[in-house]
Amino acid sequence: MLQNDRFLRACRKEPLDYTPVWIMRQAGRYMKEYRALREKVDFLTLCKTPELATQATLLPVDMLGVDAAILFSDILIPVEAMGMSVVFTENRGPVFPEPLRTEAQVKALSIPLPEEKTPFVIDAVRQIRRELKDRIPLIGFAGAPYTLATYMVEGETSRNFHQVKRWIYQSPGWLHALLETLTETVSLYLRSQVEAGADAVQLFDTWAGMLSPDEYAEFSLPYTRRIIQDLRSAGSFRGPIILYINGGGTLLEKMADSGADVIGLDWRIDIADARKRIGDRVSLQGNLDPCVLYASPDIIRAQARKILTKFGSGSGHIFNLGHGILPDTPVDHARALVEAVHQESSSFHE
Amino acid sequence: MLQNDRFLRACRKEPLDYTPVWIMRQAGRYMKEYRALREKVDFLTLCKTPELATQATLLPVDMLGVDAAILFSDILIPVEAMGMSVVFTENRGPVFPEPLRTEAQVKALSIPLPEEKTPFVIDAVRQIRRELKDRIPLIGFAGAPYTLATYMVEGETSRNFHQVKRWIYQSPGWLHALLETLTETVSLYLRSQVEAGADAVQLFDTWAGMLSPDEYAEFSLPYTRRIIQDLRSAGSFRGPIILYINGGGTLLEKMADSGADVIGLDWRIDIADARKRIGDRVSLQGNLDPCVLYASPDIIRAQARKILTKFGSGSGHIFNLGHGILPDTPVDHARALVEAVHQESSSFHE
Repeated sequence: MLQNDRFLRACRKEPLDYTPVWIMRQAGRYMKEYRALREKVDFLTLCKTPELATQATLLPVDMLGVDAAILFSDILIPVEAMGMSVVFTENRGPVFPEPLRTEAQVKALSIPLPEEKTPFVIDAVRQIRRELKDRIPLIGFAGAPYTLATYMVEGETSRNFHQVKRWIYQSPGWLHALLETLTETVSLYLRSQVEAGADAVQLFDTWAGMLSPDEYAEFSLPYTRRIIQDLRSAGSFRGPIILYINGGGTLLEKMADSGADVIGLDWRIDIADARKRIGDRVSLQGNLDPCVLYASPDIIRAQARKILTKFGSGSGHIFNLGHGILPDTPVDHARALVEAVHQESSSFHE
Repeated sequence: MLQNDRFLRACRKEPLDYTPVWIMRQAGRYMKEYRALREKVDFLTLCKTPELATQATLLPVDMLGVDAAILFSDILIPVEAMGMSVVFTENRGPVFPEPLRTEAQVKALSIPLPEEKTPFVIDAVRQIRRELKDRIPLIGFAGAPYTLATYMVEGETSRNFHQVKRWIYQSPGWLHALLETLTETVSLYLRSQVEAGADAVQLFDTWAGMLSPDEYAEFSLPYTRRIIQDLRSAGSFRGPIILYINGGGTLLEKMADSGADVIGLDWRIDIADARKRIGDRVSLQGNLDPCVLYASPDIIRAQARKILTKFGSGSGHIFNLGHGILPDTPVDHARALVEAVHQESSSFHE
């Protein structure tokens, strides 16, 4: 039994005393304790060492008072395990020195077995669960196939996603083949996390918001749906599944069709509108602009209250930022947000 | 009397024989004739020399067969005239060596009189009108105040717009003061273009899609509305006013409240949905993904037909890309798009 299961209850729209909150990238460069960890080891080593990944995961739990922990890792971990070399750079983000350019490269990719290729993730989940001591739930995660494909095809973080768009319009068969392989990979990967004890999972389809609704329906949604069905049909996993897209405001109804229990919103959609559109089918997560955390605690509180008011009464809302916390955010401001959400939300619950 | 006034008729939802089309950035680096012009002079000189700006404006008219010309210029021309130094770089785009960082800098900005500070724009509009010989209409344009402010505050093209967001949450008074000055500037600037003969104008609020709906309502919409009211109250201008936002899918209803006659869509919103939401109030422009032009002419035709079918029967649609044409687009593909729109659209009109 969890001491604080508000996050899980909100995902299931069960009654609550206040609205739970966690923060995307809550263990990150904005914390000096995280920077201290990173002074000792590089990013990939941090992800691949269960002891250190556990430390990173727990940092914000203790320091911010969030209502959920999320596995410290990276969405590209299983992609590397597929046989693609990836380099994490300080300024350019992740870079694939040999991005996918041919069908032969797609066919050469393997589907990694998590126990063999990414056992450190399984071990990290187990260790985090032990050290959390049932205080709050642990969220596992993976990138959704389309978003992983964009990195593999573009080779690095892209502004316009021209390369993957070329595949969409010129070689859709290659892209579908890649997405099939990724779907198998992500299914196995997430299953290994829930078997190790993750209480919930989030699928990050971060870049799917660059697609037209028709492209989303063809190149992303069916694969996300299969992963969710697979997690459910595996039988044992009954925990919440969250689907997040950055810039998904025009895709909400389709996202709700995915089978996810919770839809993660960025800050560009009014959460009152989102609730009207899909709130009868799913819970909502979000949706504060990460830049609000630059402002003073009283402004942070006012902006948090605004979102809570827009969502309105009742359960079904997990407070979060609309995108990852920014590296130059003051830690005190993150803490002020968590406190403000807890205090300001109580009047919206019975 | 214009020989081809289909663009203007579509803006007014008047009956047509086929759907008009033009292409954002239709005079640009993807054309070898444009690159030849740029070999002789730098970008700013091209903008500031009416003879050359006229040549650039007319290139796609002759080569593509589009139904509207758009003034060759840049949204930052009036910003430079306000007293801010701007440098156009080949790789980083426009850069302000001294971006706005203080309230004193905002107060030091002047409101330029177009006849004094940007007479070359007025002369270019006059010369283009002469050389167009009433074949098709000419669209003038300006950046909307919020988008211009982002450049001035960020200093260069930004990924996350952190600086301007700091102003929004920490110093909104500074931003409103800046937006006031920009509103005056843009009003005078657009008025000078319509007095010189522009048949329509487009306001580019390119980056307003990074705002939450509430921020858009506070920091962009009121200023856009004032510019449109000012153009109308000046009395003489009855031509269409187009408002474009990249990523405006969650803002459509507010955009339609601006007083604009036409709302420009990017490719991430389904045009059938957009018509349902605001089609009773405005015409729609867009919304093909610029990356479609990488594909073969038959795929371009199929994708154009899909958008025409989604819009459906009747007038009120100006075909365009959802964002500017990309520099590595084959010219033949742009020409194929124009031809496809003209041919495929006829069955949707009486």
